[in-house]
Amino acid sequence: MQETIRIIGIDPGLRRTGWGVIETLGNSLRFIASGTVTSDGDMDLASRLCQLHDGLADVVHQYRPDEAAVEQTFVNKDAVATLKLGQARGIAMLVPARAGLPVAEYAPNAVKKAVIGVGHGDKQQIQMMLKILMPKATFTGADAADALALAICHAHNRGGTRMRMAKLAG
Amino acid sequence: MQETIRIIGIDPGLRRTGWGVIETLGNSLRFIASGTVTSDGDMDLASRLCQLHDGLADVVHQYRPDEAAVEQTFVNKDAVATLKLGQARGIAMLVPARAGLPVAEYAPNAVKKAVIGVGHGDKQQIQMMLKILMPKATFTGADAADALALAICHAHNRGGTRMRMAKLAG
Repeated sequence: MQETIRIIGIDPGLRRTGWGVIETLGNSLRFIASGTVTSDGDMDLASRLCQLHDGLADVVHQYRPDEAAVEQTFVNKDAVATLKLGQARGIAMLVPARAGLPVAEYAPNAVKKAVIGVGHGDKQQIQMMLKILMPKATFTGADAADALALAICHAHNRGGTRMRMAKLAG
Repeated sequence: MQETIRIIGIDPGLRRTGWGVIETLGNSLRFIASGTVTSDGDMDLASRLCQLHDGLADVVHQYRPDEAAVEQTFVNKDAVATLKLGQARGIAMLVPARAGLPVAEYAPNAVKKAVIGVGHGDKQQIQMMLKILMPKATFTGADAADALALAICHAHNRGGTRMRMAKLAG
């Protein structure tokens, strides 16, 4: 008998962290919810990290996912931006891990491959495919859409060999 | 009447996060404790961030500091290392902030200036000055020593104008 697994995808960012929750049963996908947790740019860094933490903790508490997937950030050339992203990403991984969820990481091209079928493509293609894969899906903004794509990527790749292969490809 | 303030300094790192707790009363400094929280390099990133979180949360719970100071990381050219450090630093700022402590940030040269008197100097000079400023201080390793130096830096710079000046100089 197959088991319904509820997955949260998280696309971390200091200003905006997108999240998306889906359910997978065999090959079927079901949209549950999506949204964005924001932090206030006028506040100090520690307070902003608290805002992200509390917002994500509320989402995990409300939707009680079984597993989590976090975007494996593309490391760009701007070191200041990389450090900021790292801080937000630390919180994005901590929250589900502290709730006892296994946390998988996927590179952006693995996510695109899972959703569009190839390892490249723009945000509009991802959002179009999301509506095809899950017609009832709603999302406001690219961060929530990316988070849903991450959750779908994990639905396709969770479990032994296929997950390892996706990580190798990432 | 002057007030005794207990300060925790935190020098974040994914493998090793140093911490040091001191008390300040006027111009006097008192060593309370220091140590290092480590994460297991064989575990996955999310679990390692949990280890840092839980270790630091234990320290904050045990020593109940009033204020925190975290090193404002030097952004180096290695983006992978910067991202790792960012993730650890996110946890190092989150833990005291969630406990309700104000969290100050100091650049390494501001810390050196506070402890050695100039904005440059090696780790041995810092450790030598720590023993002069707080003869009872004990620390195993450079991370704990750097964390104590951070706490001293905050003791010297906490409060309005001087703190802003240190930040500008940082």
